[in-house]
Amino acid sequence: MDVGFVGLGQMGHAIAANLVSAGHQVSLWNRSPDKADDLVSQGARLARCPADTAPGGVVFTMLADDAALEAVSFGEGGLLSAAEPVLHVSLSTISPTLAKRLDEAHRNAGGRFVSAPVFGRPDAAAARKLFVVAAGASEDIAQVQPLFDAIGQRTFTVGEEPAQANVVKLCGNFMIMASIESMAEAMTLGVKNGIERATLNEVLTETLFGGLVHRNYGKMLVEEAFRPAGFAAPLGLKDMRLVKNAAEEARVPMPVLGVVHDHLLSTIAREGEDIDWSGIARIVAADAGL
Amino acid sequence: MDVGFVGLGQMGHAIAANLVSAGHQVSLWNRSPDKADDLVSQGARLARCPADTAPGGVVFTMLADDAALEAVSFGEGGLLSAAEPVLHVSLSTISPTLAKRLDEAHRNAGGRFVSAPVFGRPDAAAARKLFVVAAGASEDIAQVQPLFDAIGQRTFTVGEEPAQANVVKLCGNFMIMASIESMAEAMTLGVKNGIERATLNEVLTETLFGGLVHRNYGKMLVEEAFRPAGFAAPLGLKDMRLVKNAAEEARVPMPVLGVVHDHLLSTIAREGEDIDWSGIARIVAADAGL
Amino acid sequence: MDVGFVGLGQMGHAIAANLVSAGHQVSLWNRSPDKADDLVSQGARLARCPADTAPGGVVFTMLADDAALEAVSFGEGGLLSAAEPVLHVSLSTISPTLAKRLDEAHRNAGGRFVSAPVFGRPDAAAARKLFVVAAGASEDIAQVQPLFDAIGQRTFTVGEEPAQANVVKLCGNFMIMASIESMAEAMTLGVKNGIERATLNEVLTETLFGGLVHRNYGKMLVEEAFRPAGFAAPLGLKDMRLVKNAAEEARVPMPVLGVVHDHLLSTIAREGEDIDWSGIARIVAADAGL
Amino acid sequence: MDVGFVGLGQMGHAIAANLVSAGHQVSLWNRSPDKADDLVSQGARLARCPADTAPGGVVFTMLADDAALEAVSFGEGGLLSAAEPVLHVSLSTISPTLAKRLDEAHRNAGGRFVSAPVFGRPDAAAARKLFVVAAGASEDIAQVQPLFDAIGQRTFTVGEEPAQANVVKLCGNFMIMASIESMAEAMTLGVKNGIERATLNEVLTETLFGGLVHRNYGKMLVEEAFRPAGFAAPLGLKDMRLVKNAAEEARVPMPVLGVVHDHLLSTIAREGEDIDWSGIARIVAADAGL
Repeated sequence: MDVGFVGLGQMGHAIAANLVSAGHQVSLWNRSPDKADDLVSQGARLARCPADTAPGGVVFTMLADDAALEAVSFGEGGLLSAAEPVLHVSLSTISPTLAKRLDEAHRNAGGRFVSAPVFGRPDAAAARKLFVVAAGASEDIAQVQPLFDAIGQRTFTVGEEPAQANVVKLCGNFMIMASIESMAEAMTLGVKNGIERATLNEVLTETLFGGLVHRNYGKMLVEEAFRPAGFAAPLGLKDMRLVKNAAEEARVPMPVLGVVHDHLLSTIAREGEDIDWSGIARIVAADAGL
Repeated sequence: MDVGFVGLGQMGHAIAANLVSAGHQVSLWNRSPDKADDLVSQGARLARCPADTAPGGVVFTMLADDAALEAVSFGEGGLLSAAEPVLHVSLSTISPTLAKRLDEAHRNAGGRFVSAPVFGRPDAAAARKLFVVAAGASEDIAQVQPLFDAIGQRTFTVGEEPAQANVVKLCGNFMIMASIESMAEAMTLGVKNGIERATLNEVLTETLFGGLVHRNYGKMLVEEAFRPAGFAAPLGLKDMRLVKNAAEEARVPMPVLGVVHDHLLSTIAREGEDIDWSGIARIVAADAGL
Repeated sequence: MDVGFVGLGQMGHAIAANLVSAGHQVSLWNRSPDKADDLVSQGARLARCPADTAPGGVVFTMLADDAALEAVSFGEGGLLSAAEPVLHVSLSTISPTLAKRLDEAHRNAGGRFVSAPVFGRPDAAAARKLFVVAAGASEDIAQVQPLFDAIGQRTFTVGEEPAQANVVKLCGNFMIMASIESMAEAMTLGVKNGIERATLNEVLTETLFGGLVHRNYGKMLVEEAFRPAGFAAPLGLKDMRLVKNAAEEARVPMPVLGVVHDHLLSTIAREGEDIDWSGIARIVAADAGL
Repeated sequence: MDVGFVGLGQMGHAIAANLVSAGHQVSLWNRSPDKADDLVSQGARLARCPADTAPGGVVFTMLADDAALEAVSFGEGGLLSAAEPVLHVSLSTISPTLAKRLDEAHRNAGGRFVSAPVFGRPDAAAARKLFVVAAGASEDIAQVQPLFDAIGQRTFTVGEEPAQANVVKLCGNFMIMASIESMAEAMTLGVKNGIERATLNEVLTETLFGGLVHRNYGKMLVEEAFRPAGFAAPLGLKDMRLVKNAAEEARVPMPVLGVVHDHLLSTIAREGEDIDWSGIARIVAADAGL
């Protein structure tokens, strides 16, 4: 298939590489074009602007935040200015509000919009192990399913309104943070009672909490492997802010969200911006005098 | 092996039955002796008092709370009044403080004490699928390992001080409650955005949160299966109070514990005492106007 | 003095009336011009646009939120488009971020900016009993002090950066909400122990908590006088959002803010938008089963 | 009047001294009898045991906690063992549960019980400026009113069940802590925006929050006058634990109580046991990186 791809950060690059190696004709655009060099050498085409990635009619975007996605969509040379209406598939973790706005804008322009944020870190992206959470018109999702298959291990369709996929993604990220927080509280109670973090972690992950998040972050907490950051605290804060905004708009009190949000603020204030978001465990421990 | 067993509630009965059917000589005591009838008919012996279960020198206890365990330990005919010092193995979810007191009392009496609380509901107990979390002198644990093997699928040794096993058990129960709370917050945000609880739950448990707790309680939250209670809210409140007391003693702030504790109070105040502890999801939803 | 006044809502109208009756030459502008009728009949002049209120060089603004103040400042006919640079005195409860932006914009245009939000409800405004919290260049504040004297009982100067006055105002509004919340929690505990709210309130306000906020809101809580709203819950939510944004920007965890923010969401979700912000007491009581 | 007085700590001594100097015949008992020396030299009588203070039939007690009051009531030589039934007036900050138990015990013994905890620190006690919060049978309170008049500036009667006075006292102490916490959060937000704590405090206490608690503690927070402790953090923690137990028993979620309780734990863990309970402000500031 012909497909455009905008955004070659760590995640975007790994995903685009999988599209290329799966044999698709990929037109790339990135603010810093040199990030595309290796993919161009493997057969991808470098576009002059986001809109120029769209000749095939389908464009994937993977950007850092709302502002970046707004820029490549509504800005000069943005997707909304493409000669022909596009099917825009947004993989980014963005606000449901922006998803709604993009959905409306593309419809008004005769195009279509699918939200398809992904779960998984860069190594999972490289290994085609992402989970794709898609929402939009079922025929649109069906059309790009082969592309999803080239980048992830499984696709979940969660609704017909694109913004719903973003809500699901935010729920997932919230639950990751909540799990880190509760593991940190439990481990701190354990340590102050003479129990090794590794011991407690083994019991919990080998019995009741055997899922990916508890295994991966449990290990990070045991090893205090907070630097270099896999996902830096300020990015976590950005995501939790998106959750808070969505919760405020929907009138949903989320007290555990309040706890992790405050702990992220404290983490950044006390540890700096280069620490992993799981570094909230440092604050939980410090607050207990450790 | 000759082994005493005190406490034939739902959990205790299932465990004692497994000891009997594994061929051990079991001396039983329960406040209501008729609970022992079927086991006696299978070869167990009915004792006259807790101390009378101890001729073999090893006694397991499985009681509802600190007060009940204190009664069978320090009360008339209690384990501490046995003719010969005993190796007391406590399976109950009790306070670390009581575990310390029992450890000291048994040592002073020339006996020994092992704390070995278990993870698993009655159906897991019946199926010998419990996880045993043991702490105490390694030779004492080794001595009763064949008995643990008859009642659970795996034993974890977490420390040499018996109370440490109780801390680990409390950490686990806290993390269960924290997980239910965060799932409930996420699902409420989802529902208010038009996403089915079942849809969100499927995405979360099939990707990042595939452990037992998220699967089992996720299903309960989806189905709102809060009555009849598998583990009633007042029992959950009792456990969270034990965690709070342990946290207070160790000077560990646990803000997520505060959230779930408050939600349990609200659950009991608004829904009554017969609801499952996962019924805190009702409060989370109600607070959002659902 | 010649002074412009933009924004004739409930608060703005009462303030402008005091400026008029103190003998100042007031040029008025309001989106709905009929709100100015009575003041014009008392000698005020009706301007054609916000910029047109500025011939004297000084303009007060009192608007509902950031968006409204942005419109009269940066929009067509806005203060920044005035023929001569102005001294803009903003009385509104707005974000520190907007105050910074306005300060910069006015400086760039050769003008000056003072933030001077006020404490007090409309009845206090009518009675010239407002407290004015001002920040900006001391000579600018000195220049408009006669105007402050005409509208309030006392002026506090809190800093040289205008945004600091807005931070102080937000701190005050946060503390009002926090006081309401803690009174509500205490009263609920009292009621469930058979103590009348009025009894508890009398003891507290006649001894330790004799300030205005506790007296006024204590009375409202005792009488459950939540409708009609003096200050509606959605306005309170807007203010708490401003506090949260400021706290997030400054990296300040504020857990009590999290509590009141969640309770405002719950109040709006369960009670509707027409309830006073002190109606969070309803949620506190309901969560205890009352 | 003849009156017994048990408990000559800092508060008790100041109160007993006022009873003596008001001309009452006071029989004293204290665990360390030398604390009574100066009062004996002023005409008071030293009793041999708590029960021996009761010849006049009325005994005031002022002890540090539940355990101490239990000892002088139910222990050897305790008030319940007095030859004649007594009217026991308890001034201590104790649990409502103990108040109920004492009320019942005295009734069963043919005696009477009044709870009359006081608001005020030792300097207020010395100056006869205490506020007395009394609950019990109205005739009993009337009987000892002259004694209350000798020790305080005003008596509030809050109910007929003695425990209700203890609930009111706990509500007051909770609200003090909640006020300190919210002032600390506000001041931290201010400081990080370049606003002096003294400036913010002046604005708040001179406008909306002019009561005693905000004035006194506001000053302490401004001056960071946390040592020596006027009321040490561990005592504050004890009181907050009493509130939590009362809230748990009454099924009242109190999220702000959870916040201050956690911050007290953190204060003790990080700052030690010798800091004033208002030292929670240190934790609030530290969590923001100050």
